[in-house]
Amino acid sequence: MLFDALFAPKTIALVGASSDAAKNTSRPQRMLRSHGFTGTILPINPRRDHVFGDRAYPSLLEAPGQIDHAFIMVPVDAVARAVEDCVARNVSVATVYTDGFAEVGPEGRRRQDELVDIARAGGVRLLGPNCSGIYSTQPSCALSVNSAIERLEITAGPLAIISQSGSMTGGLVSRGLGRGVGFSRIVSIGNEADLGVGELVDLLVDDDSTGAVLLFIESVRDASRLASAAKRAASAGKPVIAYKLGRSELGRDMAASHTGAMVGSDEVMDAYFHANGILRVDNLEALFELPPLLVGQRPATRHRVAVMSTTGGGAGIVVDRLGSVGVDVVPPSESVIANLHAQGISISDARVTDLTHAGTRAEVYGPVLQELLASDHCDLVLAIAGSSAQFQPEITVEPVVNADRHGKPLAMFIAPHADESLRRLNGSGVAGYRTPESCVDSIRAWASWSPPSDVARSGDLESVRASLASAHAGSLNERDSSAVFSALGIATAPSVVITRPDEEAPLAFPVVAKVLSADVPHKTDAGGVVLGIDDAKALQSAATDILDRVLARHPGARIDGILVQQQEAGVAEVILGYRRDPQLGPVVVLGVGGVLAEIYQDFAVRMAPVGPDDAMAMIDEVQGLAVLSGFRGLPRGDKRALADAVAAMSQLASVQDLDIVEAEVNPLLVREEGRGVVAVDGLVVLAARASSPGSPSKTGPTPPDATGWQATSQGAARREEMGAHHGG
Amino acid sequence: MLFDALFAPKTIALVGASSDAAKNTSRPQRMLRSHGFTGTILPINPRRDHVFGDRAYPSLLEAPGQIDHAFIMVPVDAVARAVEDCVARNVSVATVYTDGFAEVGPEGRRRQDELVDIARAGGVRLLGPNCSGIYSTQPSCALSVNSAIERLEITAGPLAIISQSGSMTGGLVSRGLGRGVGFSRIVSIGNEADLGVGELVDLLVDDDSTGAVLLFIESVRDASRLASAAKRAASAGKPVIAYKLGRSELGRDMAASHTGAMVGSDEVMDAYFHANGILRVDNLEALFELPPLLVGQRPATRHRVAVMSTTGGGAGIVVDRLGSVGVDVVPPSESVIANLHAQGISISDARVTDLTHAGTRAEVYGPVLQELLASDHCDLVLAIAGSSAQFQPEITVEPVVNADRHGKPLAMFIAPHADESLRRLNGSGVAGYRTPESCVDSIRAWASWSPPSDVARSGDLESVRASLASAHAGSLNERDSSAVFSALGIATAPSVVITRPDEEAPLAFPVVAKVLSADVPHKTDAGGVVLGIDDAKALQSAATDILDRVLARHPGARIDGILVQQQEAGVAEVILGYRRDPQLGPVVVLGVGGVLAEIYQDFAVRMAPVGPDDAMAMIDEVQGLAVLSGFRGLPRGDKRALADAVAAMSQLASVQDLDIVEAEVNPLLVREEGRGVVAVDGLVVLAARASSPGSPSKTGPTPPDATGWQATSQGAARREEMGAHHGG
Repeated sequence: MLFDALFAPKTIALVGASSDAAKNTSRPQRMLRSHGFTGTILPINPRRDHVFGDRAYPSLLEAPGQIDHAFIMVPVDAVARAVEDCVARNVSVATVYTDGFAEVGPEGRRRQDELVDIARAGGVRLLGPNCSGIYSTQPSCALSVNSAIERLEITAGPLAIISQSGSMTGGLVSRGLGRGVGFSRIVSIGNEADLGVGELVDLLVDDDSTGAVLLFIESVRDASRLASAAKRAASAGKPVIAYKLGRSELGRDMAASHTGAMVGSDEVMDAYFHANGILRVDNLEALFELPPLLVGQRPATRHRVAVMSTTGGGAGIVVDRLGSVGVDVVPPSESVIANLHAQGISISDARVTDLTHAGTRAEVYGPVLQELLASDHCDLVLAIAGSSAQFQPEITVEPVVNADRHGKPLAMFIAPHADESLRRLNGSGVAGYRTPESCVDSIRAWASWSPPSDVARSGDLESVRASLASAHAGSLNERDSSAVFSALGIATAPSVVITRPDEEAPLAFPVVAKVLSADVPHKTDAGGVVLGIDDAKALQSAATDILDRVLARHPGARIDGILVQQQEAGVAEVILGYRRDPQLGPVVVLGVGGVLAEIYQDFAVRMAPVGPDDAMAMIDEVQGLAVLSGFRGLPRGDKRALADAVAAMSQLASVQDLDIVEAEVNPLLVREEGRGVVAVDGLVVLAARASSPGSPSKTGPTPPDATGWQATSQGAARREEMGAHHGG
Repeated sequence: MLFDALFAPKTIALVGASSDAAKNTSRPQRMLRSHGFTGTILPINPRRDHVFGDRAYPSLLEAPGQIDHAFIMVPVDAVARAVEDCVARNVSVATVYTDGFAEVGPEGRRRQDELVDIARAGGVRLLGPNCSGIYSTQPSCALSVNSAIERLEITAGPLAIISQSGSMTGGLVSRGLGRGVGFSRIVSIGNEADLGVGELVDLLVDDDSTGAVLLFIESVRDASRLASAAKRAASAGKPVIAYKLGRSELGRDMAASHTGAMVGSDEVMDAYFHANGILRVDNLEALFELPPLLVGQRPATRHRVAVMSTTGGGAGIVVDRLGSVGVDVVPPSESVIANLHAQGISISDARVTDLTHAGTRAEVYGPVLQELLASDHCDLVLAIAGSSAQFQPEITVEPVVNADRHGKPLAMFIAPHADESLRRLNGSGVAGYRTPESCVDSIRAWASWSPPSDVARSGDLESVRASLASAHAGSLNERDSSAVFSALGIATAPSVVITRPDEEAPLAFPVVAKVLSADVPHKTDAGGVVLGIDDAKALQSAATDILDRVLARHPGARIDGILVQQQEAGVAEVILGYRRDPQLGPVVVLGVGGVLAEIYQDFAVRMAPVGPDDAMAMIDEVQGLAVLSGFRGLPRGDKRALADAVAAMSQLASVQDLDIVEAEVNPLLVREEGRGVVAVDGLVVLAARASSPGSPSKTGPTPPDATGWQATSQGAARREEMGAHHGG
C-alpha cells in the first residue's frame, strides 16, 4: 500500500548511502536508527561491504527481499538507472533527494520527465526529486537528509506538514516543537514530479494519526487533485491550512525562480482555497496556533467573537486588529450579564468584557469565561490575560485550560512573555497565542473558513451550446458573444444588425451604433461607436461615418455589419468576466467599471461555478459596488439580479468541452432595485487554436492580477466621452 | 530637579502605605526595597507607628526632611488633601495611583482639574492620576504598585517605556526581558493630568541611560509638546517608537471608552508621527526588535535592502512580505559579486542571495555578509538563516554578531525556533527577529522613517490677510473663498460676478454660472449651477433659471449674485483641503474627486505646512492620482504644479491668528504637464464663533477619516451630469 510504503516502510534501501559521516548522504541511515526505526536498512554502495554496520549491496538489484521504499541519493546522471532498478525490484516508492531536475531549467525538466516515464511504466511511485525526505513519528521513520530534522526531538502529535521548501521543513517543525505541538508526518515534497501535494493530502485524510494538514507552498501544481483531497479532508473534519508565498509580485517572482513552477495570481489562489475549504494564514506562527481553534469544528455560519480580558490595553491591541480585518466583536448578552450577576459578579455591557485588575481572580475569570462559552450570543471566545498569566496561571490560565467549551472555539492571548503558560494551553488543546498578530490572523482565518463549494455544474446548457453552433475559434463578434450571454440567461440590450447604412432598425431611440467585426478589437478607438442616436436619419449618418472611419483604420477588416443597440441606463456599470486560470481552473470575476476601479484593482474572484449566495458575497467584496447599496443617497441597484448574472456567467465552467477560454460582459449595467441588469457589450473567446500574436484574443479580458480589464464599446465610448467632458 | 525627583528621588513618601501585605498599597514599599532602592522611605499611615519596619507618619505634614517624591494611594476623596500636603511640604513630584478621575466621567474630570489646580498653584508636578507608577533601573527606584513589575527581574538597558495602559506595562517589560533587552525607565503615565507623554519624552532625551523611547499609547493628549520633544530626541539620535492603538474604528471606540480621551483619525495620527520623526510599529514585538536597527542611525534617504539567506523558503517568507509593504530588495552589485569571486565564493545576481545548503558554512556566510555590509549598493542588510542558526550558530549567527557593520543597519531573521541565538544577537546589538512579520514591520518602519519636518511657516501671507479683511466668521462664499486661494498663489478660474441676469460677463465662452451665496451649501442640489453656457443669451437664461430655482428652494437665502466662471479643463480633478485637527493641529489633505475615490478613501494627509517634496510624495501616495503619471496612455498631468498648490494650501497653517478652520478647493483641475492647475470651486470656513447647527460650516469639508469630501459646484455638477449620463 502506498501509504505504508511512504510513511511506514519495513525495508528501506538507501541508494548512494555514504560511509563518510560528514556527508549528507550518510545521514538517513544514522537518523533512521537514532530516531527509532525498527525495520531493515539496506545501504546501496558499490564500494563497501558494510556501511556503518549494516550490510551494503552494490546495487538495488543485488539487495535481498522485498524493498518498500528506496531513498535515492546518487548523482543526477545515475538517478534514472536507480529508478530503473526500483522498477526491476518492484519497489513501491522511490524518494529522490538528488537535485538538478526541473528546478534548473529545460534540460533538468527533460531528465525529470524521463524519471517519471520510467517510474510510471514500471509501477513505482516517486517522491521528489529535489526533496529532503519524509519523517513519520508513529511508527518512527526518519527517512531524510535534513540535518535540522536529525537534531530535533520530534514529538508525536496530530499535525502533518507538507512543504515545498526543503530548507524550511526543519524551521517549521522546530517552531511547532517550540510551541509544544507534535507531528504525525513531515514531507519535503520537492519538485512533485509524480506524488504531489494533492495526493499527499489525500493519503493523510485516511491517516488516523493526522488531525490537520499544514501546507508550506509556493505554488499549486495539482489543483484538481488537491481540490478533491481538500474536500475529503473537510468531510473527515481535518482542516487543511496553507501558508502560501506569493502575496506580492516580489514574492511571486522569487517563488517562480525558486521552484521553476508557474505562479499565478494570488487573488485566484485565494479563490481556490476558499472554494475548497482550505484555510490560508498570513502569519507564520498561525500555522501552529490555528489548528487547536479548529479541532472538532466545522466552518461556522456566524462569526461573533466575545472578548474578555484582565488588561484593557492588552484587549485593545487585539480588538483594534480584529476591527481592521473586519471581525465582529460582540458585547455580552443580557442573559450572560444576568447569570453572572446572580453569581455576584458584575460586568459591564461594553463590547469588551474588561475585568480590570479588580477582577483578576480565578473566582471571577472562570465564571465569566464559562458564561461566555455557554451563551449562544457568540461563536468564539477570546480570553486575554495580562501578567497574571505569567506569574499566577491559576488565576487566568487554569480556568481556560479547564473550561467546558460547549463545543465552542476558545482562544487565549497572553500579553506578557509566558512560554510556560502557552505550552500549558497548547498541551490542553487550547489555542494559545504569543503574538496579537497571529491571534488575529487565526481568528480571521476561522471567520473566513467555509465548506468546500458544492455548486452543481448545470447539465442543461444546451442553449449555450446552440448559440455556439456555428462559432469559430478565437474572439466572437459582439452579436455572437451576446448570444452566448443571452443563452446563459443574462439580459442583453435589444439590438439588430444592419448591413447597409440606410437600413431601418426597429428599435426605440435613442440607440447606439457599433461596428460589428471580430477584426476590430478596439471599436471606440477605431471610430466604430456612436452613442445617443436620436432618430433614423442620425442613425444612417452615424452608420456611414462608422464604416468610413473603421475601414480607413483597418483596411482589411471583415465587417459583419453595424450593430444597432438600444441605449441602456443603469445606476452602475460592472464588468463580469469568466476565464480559465491555467493552473487553478475556471474563475468568475466581478469588478466595477472605469479607470479608477482599474487603478484600485477592485474586484472579486471565485472559482466557477458559484451559487447566488456566493455571488452576493462577491458583490459585497467589491468596494466600488457600495454604490449599489444606496451610497450617499444614490438609488439602490438590483444586487439580486446582478448576483444571478454572476452565477449564470460562472456556469460557463459547465461547458468545458466547448473551449470557452474567456468571456466578459463589459459593461453590464445594473439598474435600480427590482429592474434587473442588462449587458450592453461583451466578448467571448473560444480556444484560439489558430490564434496568432496580435489576434483579437490577445486583446480580450486580461487576468485580474494584471493591469485589469480593457474597456469595450458602449461602456468604453461612454467613459471616453465622459473623460473628454470631464476635462472639458 | 524634576528628572531626579521623578526617577531618582532620595526620599519617597508613600501616602496611604498599607501594613497589609495582601494589599496593592503595601507593594511600593516592599518593591522599592527588594529592587534595591537605597534612599529613605516614609510610609504615611495615620494608624501605625511603623509599617514593615519603616517609621510611619500620620501625614505628610509630620514626616521629616525634604521629600522628593510622594506616591499617593489614598481613596479618591482624600487625594486632593494629599496633594495640598505635598504643596505644604514642597514635594517636587506627586504620583497619584488612585483612580476615579477623568477616566470615569465629568465628575471625575472635575476632581482631576481640582488636583491640577492645587498642584500648579503650589509648584508640585503630578504624574497620573490612575497610573501604576514608575520604575528606574539606574539608580534602582521601583516606585510602583504593579505586581508584574514586582516579580520581574528588570535588567538595565537603553529602552525607556511610556505606557498609557497601566495593565500592559508589565506585559511590555516582560516581553522585552524575554528577548534579552534591558530598560532604563518605565512609566505608567495614567491620565496625564499634568505630566504628559511629551514632557516625559523631553526629560528622557537628556537621560544618559536612555537610548530609545517606546510609547504604548491610545491617544496623544499633548501634541505640540510631544512634537517638540520628538524633534529634540531626533537631534539627540534617540529614536521615539510608538505602538498606537486605534487603527480600526473598533479600536478607536475602545480606546475612547478606555481612556476618556478623544481619539482622532488614524491617518492624521500617522501624519503627525511622520512630521515629527516618530516611528510607528504595527507589530507588538517590533517595539523591542526595531531599536537595534536604529542605533547610531539617522533617517536614510535611500532604502535599498540586500537579502542573503541559507534557506530559499525562509527568504521567500520575508521577501514576499517586504514586497507587500513596498520595500525595495536589491540584488548584489557587480563589484560584490566580483569581490566574492576573488575570494573563491560564487553567488548569483538574483535579487536574493540564496547560499543554499551548500553555502551554509561560516567561510561563505561571513564573507558574503561582509561584502554586502561594505558595499554602497544597499542601505540595509537582512541576513536570514535556517536551522543552522538553531544548532550551529557558529555558521550563521556568529558571523552576524561579529560583522563590521560599516555603519549600516543589520537585521537577522531566523527561520527555526532559536531563542538562544536571538538572545545572542540582541546581546550584541544586532536586530534579531523571531517572526517574519515583525522583521518586515521593522524594516518598513525604518524605510519610512524621516527626520522631523522643518518646513518654515511663511511669514509673508499679507495677501491672504488682505483677502480676508472684510470676511465674517463662518463659510465664505465661493468668490471670497477663491480670493483666499488666489492670495495663496493657487490659480483660480477667471470669473466675474453679475448681479442681474442681463449683465454681460467679459469672459471667453463656454462659461459656467453658479449662484453666489454662503447660505446655499449645496449649489448643485439647489439648481444653482449651469455648465456649458456657450453664449451671452444662454447665460442670461441660465442666470434667470438659477435665481428662480434657488429662491424656490431657499426662500430666505442671501444671494450675492451669479458667479460666472470660465469653464476649465484638466486631465484630473483633485480635492485639496486644509483643516485643523482638534488634537494634532493643522493638516493638508489631497484626494481625488468622485464617488469612487470617496468609497476607496483614497487620500494623503500631512501636517501643515509641507514643502514641495513632501507634497510630491503625497501625490504619489494617492492611488487614484496614478492618472497623472500617464496611466494607460492618458496624458500626463502637471504634478509639479499640483505639488506647489498643495504646499501653498498648507501655508494656511502660518496664519493661525486668522482662524481659518477649514479650506477646500474642490475641484482643483490638474492640466497637462507644464500647463498648471486651476481651482474652479472651493470653500473657506473661518472660526464659526456664531455658528449654529445646520449652518454652512457644518456642510463644509469633512474630516478625511469620515465619509469623505462633499462634492461642490462646477466639479459636482459635472460629476452629477456624468452620473446621469453614465446611467444612460
